[in-house]
Amino acid sequence: MTQLIEDLRWRYSTKKFDPTKTISDADFKVLMEVIALVPSSNGLQPYKFMVVENPEIRKKLREKSWNQSQVTDASHLVVMCAYIQLNEWHIDEFITLNQVVRAAEPEKLVGFSMHLKNSIISKPLEEMTANNENQVYIALGHLLHAAAQMRIDSSPMEGFQKEAYDEILGLKEKNLKSVVVCALGYRSDEDAYQHQKKVRKNTDDLFEWVV
Amino acid sequence: MTQLIEDLRWRYSTKKFDPTKTISDADFKVLMEVIALVPSSNGLQPYKFMVVENPEIRKKLREKSWNQSQVTDASHLVVMCAYIQLNEWHIDEFITLNQVVRAAEPEKLVGFSMHLKNSIISKPLEEMTANNENQVYIALGHLLHAAAQMRIDSSPMEGFQKEAYDEILGLKEKNLKSVVVCALGYRSDEDAYQHQKKVRKNTDDLFEWVV
Repeated sequence: MTQLIEDLRWRYSTKKFDPTKTISDADFKVLMEVIALVPSSNGLQPYKFMVVENPEIRKKLREKSWNQSQVTDASHLVVMCAYIQLNEWHIDEFITLNQVVRAAEPEKLVGFSMHLKNSIISKPLEEMTANNENQVYIALGHLLHAAAQMRIDSSPMEGFQKEAYDEILGLKEKNLKSVVVCALGYRSDEDAYQHQKKVRKNTDDLFEWVV
Repeated sequence: MTQLIEDLRWRYSTKKFDPTKTISDADFKVLMEVIALVPSSNGLQPYKFMVVENPEIRKKLREKSWNQSQVTDASHLVVMCAYIQLNEWHIDEFITLNQVVRAAEPEKLVGFSMHLKNSIISKPLEEMTANNENQVYIALGHLLHAAAQMRIDSSPMEGFQKEAYDEILGLKEKNLKSVVVCALGYRSDEDAYQHQKKVRKNTDDLFEWVV
């Protein structure tokens, strides 16, 4: 068994975190760096991540999350958000970033910029938002994976009231919407779920070969 | 710099694969095992992965992918699909799997089964499909990450004609739809993209602290 598989087997969706244990700044910095490296559609990174430290706000969010204790007890609570709408400004910002990082020929980027504007901004809003949300889930995949490698526990959560989260965190005004929450920290010894066997389909059920 | 960050920096969206290099069966088995371990909403794993080996079908798919060479030249082409609809049968299958793996008390599972049926099957079809598609993207995140760790190159692709793929692979009859394609293999020396610097927002732009 490779280390990689061992890491993923170690992971489980933590239901009860030890509230006394905190992820070090150095470790959380690595996780942020992981998130920054995640690939996204056209490279646009159409998302933002709110790290909620304020205990009062965490309490309010917990009330909107079926009272799940992870929301208040985990070391770090990351509300993963997608941009509702990508506009010309986002594309221009991205093109500028390309120019700076790659010292790219401006001419080449004009075409790229036009292509992005044509193909993205013209999309119906709902489709655009859904695409951005999908990218958030790629980031979630990397985050869960990286945390497991670092022996940091995680609890991805879709069971929360999104509109209430958006309201509490003032997301709509920022052109953002909450997509999925990831609580990160260290499992409590009392969390019985850590001892349960993983329930997974076998690869024969998951893969089909087109020969 | 940790190994983890180094792995993700090594990765890039490969545009030109070396068609003479093949992922070994042992390595691909690890990637399949990774996919099987990926967490999903309620643990339902509402997806299936078509590994297209047939060169004629690959050629047809390439025609529906803006002629991108990855589709025919990569060692493995994985069409990642979501279930369009989850029905009672899926839940029952999942509950049975729970019973087998965890030797769970049937009584506890009756409640769980009812909860799943109430909360999932009653959803509008479009919402249900979108949820399933999101789960595919979590799997994609893990796949890209794992491949990078194993120094296998990858090219996630959203630029393909989904309806055409569904038609060619007969997905609709299987209650599946194509979501995203992942070409896997080894980069060609000629792929200029491998030498380009990564264009990424910095973590200050991606993260916001709610204190």
